[in-house]
Amino acid sequence: MPEKVTFLGAGGWGTALALLLREQGHQVRLWAHDPKHARELAESRENPAYLPGFRLPADIEVTPDFRCLLEAGVVVLAVPSAHLRKVLEEARPFFRPGQLLVNAAKGIEAGSLLTMSELCRQVLEPKGSGFHCGLATLSGPSHAQEVAARLPASVVAASDEPKAAARTQALFSASWFRVYTSRDLKGVELGGSLKNVIALAAGIADGLGLGHNARAALVTRGLAEITRLGLALGAQASTFAGLAGLGDLVLTCTSGLSRNRALGEALGKGGKWPEAGAGMKQVAEGVGTAVSADQLAARAGVELPICQEVRKVLFEGKAPRQALEALMARSPKPEEA
Amino acid sequence: MPEKVTFLGAGGWGTALALLLREQGHQVRLWAHDPKHARELAESRENPAYLPGFRLPADIEVTPDFRCLLEAGVVVLAVPSAHLRKVLEEARPFFRPGQLLVNAAKGIEAGSLLTMSELCRQVLEPKGSGFHCGLATLSGPSHAQEVAARLPASVVAASDEPKAAARTQALFSASWFRVYTSRDLKGVELGGSLKNVIALAAGIADGLGLGHNARAALVTRGLAEITRLGLALGAQASTFAGLAGLGDLVLTCTSGLSRNRALGEALGKGGKWPEAGAGMKQVAEGVGTAVSADQLAARAGVELPICQEVRKVLFEGKAPRQALEALMARSPKPEEA
Repeated sequence: MPEKVTFLGAGGWGTALALLLREQGHQVRLWAHDPKHARELAESRENPAYLPGFRLPADIEVTPDFRCLLEAGVVVLAVPSAHLRKVLEEARPFFRPGQLLVNAAKGIEAGSLLTMSELCRQVLEPKGSGFHCGLATLSGPSHAQEVAARLPASVVAASDEPKAAARTQALFSASWFRVYTSRDLKGVELGGSLKNVIALAAGIADGLGLGHNARAALVTRGLAEITRLGLALGAQASTFAGLAGLGDLVLTCTSGLSRNRALGEALGKGGKWPEAGAGMKQVAEGVGTAVSADQLAARAGVELPICQEVRKVLFEGKAPRQALEALMARSPKPEEA
Repeated sequence: MPEKVTFLGAGGWGTALALLLREQGHQVRLWAHDPKHARELAESRENPAYLPGFRLPADIEVTPDFRCLLEAGVVVLAVPSAHLRKVLEEARPFFRPGQLLVNAAKGIEAGSLLTMSELCRQVLEPKGSGFHCGLATLSGPSHAQEVAARLPASVVAASDEPKAAARTQALFSASWFRVYTSRDLKGVELGGSLKNVIALAAGIADGLGLGHNARAALVTRGLAEITRLGLALGAQASTFAGLAGLGDLVLTCTSGLSRNRALGEALGKGGKWPEAGAGMKQVAEGVGTAVSADQLAARAGVELPICQEVRKVLFEGKAPRQALEALMARSPKPEEA
């Protein structure tokens, strides 16, 4: 059954998912924050800044007007995590009860330390409002360019409401786009966010020329530490072993397309934050998440040595080589997660 | 305390570990199966076929004579897994009780389905012989070239005898070579072996041009299936989440240096086994392991869809694209390990 779907956010990932849903026969609208960007997309039928090389069919409406939310049965949240609160606050009057919200943003809000779905509930469903939406988060290893090119990918639709997960699964599934369901919303969101910090570390190792052995060890120890934090915060270990944990971590730490890995590599080669990120068109979410991870770890009483060293490189001027040596020099002991 | 260490096998990994121990001040001997290869190494002081670019110090003796075992306190087993039984049977009279054996080979013996340490015990300690050696397996993400170049790596020394693991850890540890201990010998050996089959699958996906998303999903589902088999065979889940499982899997599936991934890529591009492997200097262990994995899975009553498709591509002429589609087409369901 065709759905009316509105995307908040016309970056690479939002655009790729919009193309996917359009191909499945749904009616798709793209909301873009910047009226100029919306007009360019609408006229040129391309998104050269964020998803070059893919044509937007004429029936995908692009608009900077929140009224595009009014008729939607499904709203996909695809703005960078740092902007999600502001966008939702502005858009709030246009949401309707019973809509399905699918969050596609990855991050932990600075200060509040909320995941994106928690932030949604806080903004859209304040106590006493009686307002309720279905809410699921879509996450997993999925570079936008490859999804737009219809290369195969497998992702997870997570929700604490099984109906919302199942509806999201049905909506996005295609022969080349596999959607699994999960009830561990917290774990899926933490995995998708924290992996970006580990990807910064992997990039730093690459920038220092430390080789593939070191990178593989970092991925392994990195998954162990984000799993540890997840467990302390009520998530399930199996989620971190799955697509939204390990899968996305492997992708982000080893692919040339990853912004976080690329930023880490620039840091490893001697660049400094924020200058090293200045040329990047899209946000490296791991920068903010490194700070949030540190605060979550303190709250949960868990050690995150890799995240901590990344934060020190970013914000305390620690030399990347010293940071990696600090990680390698931890005293030998039996291996354990 | 300097040890006398003899290496059985002068391939890339044996040579790299020999250089590592020599640098730690141990007295090192290399046994090479082929007298001609031994003479070349001894005279040229290089191993151009297997570890080009690294000089063997003059005090590393190279010999095809098993008498080099007689005085050794430690024997490192570094022959390809398919040859280990034959080498051990020939070398048996030269082993001495109380020696520490460190197995560095990865594989599951065809037919017997024994891991390499199980094979060692069977050959060297037949019932009634009263013969007993310390025995540990060294495994984890460690390309030989990078270890020889002293790039950082982290590995696991596993043994069912804590003393043997601790002694192996002490022997191999260097500032840039971190050795963790583990008691899960079975898990460490299964992880190191089975990951080669998943690497073949990842290579096939690369050869078909399926992209990074698909590869990350294969790594994730691959780890889940080898963990499932390991658990059914008495290993521990945490081992597969560690360096000898996930770590080695990530390395082998994403690095250009991996033989198994490279062979898979050739298959994905239309090559056939065994022709596709004909130009390779070193064995792609995953080929034999694909068969052994299938037999182990049948014995344990566990499904290994990825390993099974790889085996069909190798030995039943199945088209790689069909094999990968078969994996992607499994019915959507909740995600679980």
